[in-house]
Amino acid sequence: MSDLAKRFATNPIISPRDVKPSREGFEVVCTFNPGAFEFNGRFGLVVRVAERRTTDNESVESLSISRNGEIEFQSFSLTDPKLKSLDSRSFIYNDTEYITTLSHFRLAWSSDGEKFSVEDSPILSGSSDNESFGIEDTRVTKIGSEYFLTYTGVSSNGYGVQMKSTTDWKTFEDFGTVLPPFNKDAVLFDEKINGKYQMLHRPTGSGLGGPYIWSSTSTDLFHWGHHVCVATTRPNMWDSARIGAGSAPIKTEAGWLEIYHGAEVVPTGHTYRLGALLLDLDDPTRVIARSQEPIMEPRSNYETDGFYGNVVFTNGQIVQGDEILLYYGAADTYTCGARFSIKEILNSLKS
Amino acid sequence: MSDLAKRFATNPIISPRDVKPSREGFEVVCTFNPGAFEFNGRFGLVVRVAERRTTDNESVESLSISRNGEIEFQSFSLTDPKLKSLDSRSFIYNDTEYITTLSHFRLAWSSDGEKFSVEDSPILSGSSDNESFGIEDTRVTKIGSEYFLTYTGVSSNGYGVQMKSTTDWKTFEDFGTVLPPFNKDAVLFDEKINGKYQMLHRPTGSGLGGPYIWSSTSTDLFHWGHHVCVATTRPNMWDSARIGAGSAPIKTEAGWLEIYHGAEVVPTGHTYRLGALLLDLDDPTRVIARSQEPIMEPRSNYETDGFYGNVVFTNGQIVQGDEILLYYGAADTYTCGARFSIKEILNSLKS
Repeated sequence: MSDLAKRFATNPIISPRDVKPSREGFEVVCTFNPGAFEFNGRFGLVVRVAERRTTDNESVESLSISRNGEIEFQSFSLTDPKLKSLDSRSFIYNDTEYITTLSHFRLAWSSDGEKFSVEDSPILSGSSDNESFGIEDTRVTKIGSEYFLTYTGVSSNGYGVQMKSTTDWKTFEDFGTVLPPFNKDAVLFDEKINGKYQMLHRPTGSGLGGPYIWSSTSTDLFHWGHHVCVATTRPNMWDSARIGAGSAPIKTEAGWLEIYHGAEVVPTGHTYRLGALLLDLDDPTRVIARSQEPIMEPRSNYETDGFYGNVVFTNGQIVQGDEILLYYGAADTYTCGARFSIKEILNSLKS
Repeated sequence: MSDLAKRFATNPIISPRDVKPSREGFEVVCTFNPGAFEFNGRFGLVVRVAERRTTDNESVESLSISRNGEIEFQSFSLTDPKLKSLDSRSFIYNDTEYITTLSHFRLAWSSDGEKFSVEDSPILSGSSDNESFGIEDTRVTKIGSEYFLTYTGVSSNGYGVQMKSTTDWKTFEDFGTVLPPFNKDAVLFDEKINGKYQMLHRPTGSGLGGPYIWSSTSTDLFHWGHHVCVATTRPNMWDSARIGAGSAPIKTEAGWLEIYHGAEVVPTGHTYRLGALLLDLDDPTRVIARSQEPIMEPRSNYETDGFYGNVVFTNGQIVQGDEILLYYGAADTYTCGARFSIKEILNSLKS
């Protein structure tokens, strides 16, 4: 398979051991899936930090944030017969699903895009009913002078798309739940198209259909409609199990270039790779071209081994001319970086 | 269990044998789950008519509508080992789900609310990419002089919420897909609350959360936001498996009265019953009271036996003073009617 990524020699650029837990008694398990942006001449990342309490190896815990901001714990014995389907990320107890970690967002700053220092405290944590099991995987899109964060809010109600905006990376405006469960991997385009804001997202369900990439439009960013399916999974290919958009589509002469993730079921779980979609400039629900082979796949040991191995997953990038500085989560554990050439990706779509 | 329904003596009021197929070679299998409205002094129903081709008992077919309005067939042999999980409504072939019937909407008219005559031709059929497997279970809400139809659009992309409006029951304005998959059971409130349109709906997914009733708001009816979970399923009760709103909430002094369906898993599949929610007048995301016992359950033979037995399901009603003329689908086969007293339902919520 092909791999067009020029990985940073310094990978992983952020590891769990680099990041201070948000409170005593907690350990940082994963520092991954960052959103990316430029601000006042610096590179910024919004890193997803997944934590859990230091455990005794005989039980597993579910953490949630209460309305007053306190963290509540539920502990389950690993030998309890009602406990089922345990993988590193989630488990089922008595037919109800729980997740093993609680995620928040932490800012990291860099002057060169490679060496980042991570702030000691969360910039955003779950704060509403639909975020009680944490917040995950934000995309950052700059529209005008405003940065929009679209991220997954997780709770016992399911997982849906939350949105906030900021101009100073200190205070945030809240748009609430902009798409109801079961939905994630949402990202805004960085300009209006035909007079409307545009978003890609990924509903998930069972039965008919599947975890496909959809498009929606809005006039006010709070309310979304005109939902259209853009791309589906492809049987017997590297993106046969699920797909989801990465960062904001990149405007090129050929069309909107969108790097997305595709997952395939393998004996050990899922393998996540990256590919590209080229969308029509005037009608971004129309796919002009799509990667036959992935443009990046798990190869390095930090991508194949970790909390959940064989994953490269991106939701953050910075574009400079022909170069994409792509930030990605590796093995659901690390934040890593790689460079891509837009021309090379576009050429790969022609073949 | 309790049952507050006064069933029509004439039930079922519409049966598949009463309805003419929409084209030659087709048979009507189900005439059920009608939306209801009053228009020019008459009672109207928007009946879901499910059809299939007359088959040979050795194969099963999936029907879909192409872009040009033609119907396409896929035939699967019942002895094919790739065919799995067949119930009367759907089957899985090669990991893809198909449905066994194709539904459209047919108008039925009555002067007394009990005896209906069904039109010979569909009023609405699937007409967009998100409706290629048909349209199902419309709610009708009158806001001002306009009737809004919120219904399920089914396609290989999944099932989502479609909306159309009409003032004359001849021509329709299309609002497209107002909520993306996987979502159904959507209904508008019949007035704005705090200056916004309000909708109940039912997302479905797997993992965290469940098939719960949610609320959303809109300023223009095309775009929806501020999604909030209103009510969840209740373990070990009659609504433990899934719940979904019925018709437009009824404004009472005590709050918005919403009749909803709840399903419970039983050895033969699911049993569907009806219950009531009382929602706060100013904040209809807040539940004031909820039925402990159902207000209606399958009892008559037309409710226990049919295409899918043990189902009472409502998405249509007409309110006249204290009386609700409730129309419902029985056993996924028939259209039936029953009378309820609003006072009796409200009293049952106090106990």
